[in-house]
Amino acid sequence: MSQTTTTFVPGLEDVVAAQTRLSSVDGQAGQLIIAGFPVEELASQATFEETVYLLWHDALPTAEQLAAFTQSLAAQHTLPRATLALLEAATRQKAPVMDTLRMAAATLSLRAEGEAPSADPRRDALGLVARFPTIVAAYWRLLHGEKPLVPHPRLGHAANYLYMLFGKVPSAERTRGMETYLNTIVDHGLNASTFTARVIISTQSDLVSAIVGALGALKGPLHGGAPGPALDMVFEIGEAANAEPYLRRKLEQGERLMGFGHRVYKVRDPRAEVLSAAAERLYRSDGDMGLYHLARQVEQTAVALLAEYKPGRNLQTNVEFYTALLLHGLGFSTALFTPTFAIGRVVGWIAHCFEQQALNRLIRPQSVYVGAKDRRWIPLAQR
Amino acid sequence: MSQTTTTFVPGLEDVVAAQTRLSSVDGQAGQLIIAGFPVEELASQATFEETVYLLWHDALPTAEQLAAFTQSLAAQHTLPRATLALLEAATRQKAPVMDTLRMAAATLSLRAEGEAPSADPRRDALGLVARFPTIVAAYWRLLHGEKPLVPHPRLGHAANYLYMLFGKVPSAERTRGMETYLNTIVDHGLNASTFTARVIISTQSDLVSAIVGALGALKGPLHGGAPGPALDMVFEIGEAANAEPYLRRKLEQGERLMGFGHRVYKVRDPRAEVLSAAAERLYRSDGDMGLYHLARQVEQTAVALLAEYKPGRNLQTNVEFYTALLLHGLGFSTALFTPTFAIGRVVGWIAHCFEQQALNRLIRPQSVYVGAKDRRWIPLAQR
Repeated sequence: MSQTTTTFVPGLEDVVAAQTRLSSVDGQAGQLIIAGFPVEELASQATFEETVYLLWHDALPTAEQLAAFTQSLAAQHTLPRATLALLEAATRQKAPVMDTLRMAAATLSLRAEGEAPSADPRRDALGLVARFPTIVAAYWRLLHGEKPLVPHPRLGHAANYLYMLFGKVPSAERTRGMETYLNTIVDHGLNASTFTARVIISTQSDLVSAIVGALGALKGPLHGGAPGPALDMVFEIGEAANAEPYLRRKLEQGERLMGFGHRVYKVRDPRAEVLSAAAERLYRSDGDMGLYHLARQVEQTAVALLAEYKPGRNLQTNVEFYTALLLHGLGFSTALFTPTFAIGRVVGWIAHCFEQQALNRLIRPQSVYVGAKDRRWIPLAQR
Repeated sequence: MSQTTTTFVPGLEDVVAAQTRLSSVDGQAGQLIIAGFPVEELASQATFEETVYLLWHDALPTAEQLAAFTQSLAAQHTLPRATLALLEAATRQKAPVMDTLRMAAATLSLRAEGEAPSADPRRDALGLVARFPTIVAAYWRLLHGEKPLVPHPRLGHAANYLYMLFGKVPSAERTRGMETYLNTIVDHGLNASTFTARVIISTQSDLVSAIVGALGALKGPLHGGAPGPALDMVFEIGEAANAEPYLRRKLEQGERLMGFGHRVYKVRDPRAEVLSAAAERLYRSDGDMGLYHLARQVEQTAVALLAEYKPGRNLQTNVEFYTALLLHGLGFSTALFTPTFAIGRVVGWIAHCFEQQALNRLIRPQSVYVGAKDRRWIPLAQR
């Protein structure tokens, strides 16, 4: 539109669209900082509520602040009746879980029964974070012919998600595994879904609109891949002795190894480190250690063979490989992997919206016209 | 993220994020081209179906193509039952029309009763365009205690919207006014909502996700303002003799005149031209010509006074001024102005999604980190 700029930047590659205090991704050093903390320092120690508070306030909460925050989050768990009715309609058509989460999240502009109208801008933020697990768990149970459960009044956010999905109070180890996962993936620079949320909120639209847009972007296969296939590969390999021949065959057929390689990270993804440690702890306390050892063996063999077949490419283990192992250990089907990712990432999306609102500037790039000009109208009868 | 780029471009101003054949906005010349046609050439001659076909196929349809296209569009008018149930729930809370359109559009991933599952990628496109008027009209009637109407089988898209809102078959002049409005605002470069749709679809997500994101962005006041206040001003002025003293008072108090000035257009917005002609035709056949003349008087006085009070700023009539007058003449309340804009613009959003899908490249800019580093974990008891 401007007369001085005509250079099209495909994909906006290398254009910097935001300054952020929320996370820093250094792909050369393999370092991820979340609100000032190296991910290794934060993810395995914080409760999810502490991480949410940290991202939204740029500081860890005191005991008193945390108690108040935990309570106000838990108070928003319940779904509006219209949201539940929509989940039931989606169940009848067996809609994909991500589509259903997006549809249901869109209805969170509505109030739950008995909820007073509120002008507090944090109401939508808390409501979205609190209700994502309720939506996913309720829909999952409906899909499997089970009644949705109401949230457990004495459980934290992560434990409640496991409880509402599986119907029993989770062990401390399982809750820790869930929290470590959600903390690890809570934010990661300006990926496409986070950018979507910032673009929408930059028009001074509302938080529900921004988050629903982000959910739509997260669903796309180019956003960040799907962790399911990485685990499928481990199951197909079955035992350690098969790893090398199986992986060699794949590589010689020119196939991609799922769970390895990342656009940004040229060393091991720091999230893989955190999640593999979390998976080890979980499987050791309450799981199939044989599967854990097999996965490690597959990882080591894959990294070695990738160096042999694709020298100089630095294809290392990415976040998907141990996401799959950890979530599988927690009892999740692969259909729940991306929705569970959203349950963590929504916190980062909202934090980016808060940053963007503070800046208060419309994100509005230009287009260049490459089409026809001066076409003339031809009446229908003469075409 | 990249080590070589660190320059933050606030708002992505002057960055070109897309090449497009859909529309060209030349603010210096006051020229808007839509799919090769000057807006003046297209808007008042095409039916809305012809414009949709043009944007999606880069050519006007033959009579045969138009008949087939019109039929397949009309076949998608009906809402899924879950969508209607959601409109009823929104009615009970008197949710704003734009929020409700966004919530209801999100459910269009669901099939209507009796609709077969379809793998045709155009199914969502037709379904979204066809159902936006059904949603807005049904919700409007529910809000006013009236039963939603089913679409009229012999009316085109624009006429059906008027019919479903107001309950009677519109005159040819009213239909022409509606079509001219929808054609005029069908696309306009890379505004924030169109950009949102392109970002979401660039992840290879689905069309419903992209359009729902765009609706969220359109709602924001920074997107494109609201035409309501421009008309309110005309009503407050009441008669031509009051225009100058009223407008001088506003300008001397430093107030903005709604309906004048545009970020891009430095001459009269070409859409204002088209819409003022359409309004004149409509009011002449079926309206209050006094109001039309008053509006023209207010416009001329405002432009003259803006040149006097803000010399060199080139503040000209924008699209909002005559949008308000035309839609008011068609019987619309101001609460319907932005939803009606969406009924036209959804066609442009979808056309941009088709372009982006053909390009198939993720839109993914970078962020720079400006936060703390090397924070260390402090246990809760020690905070």
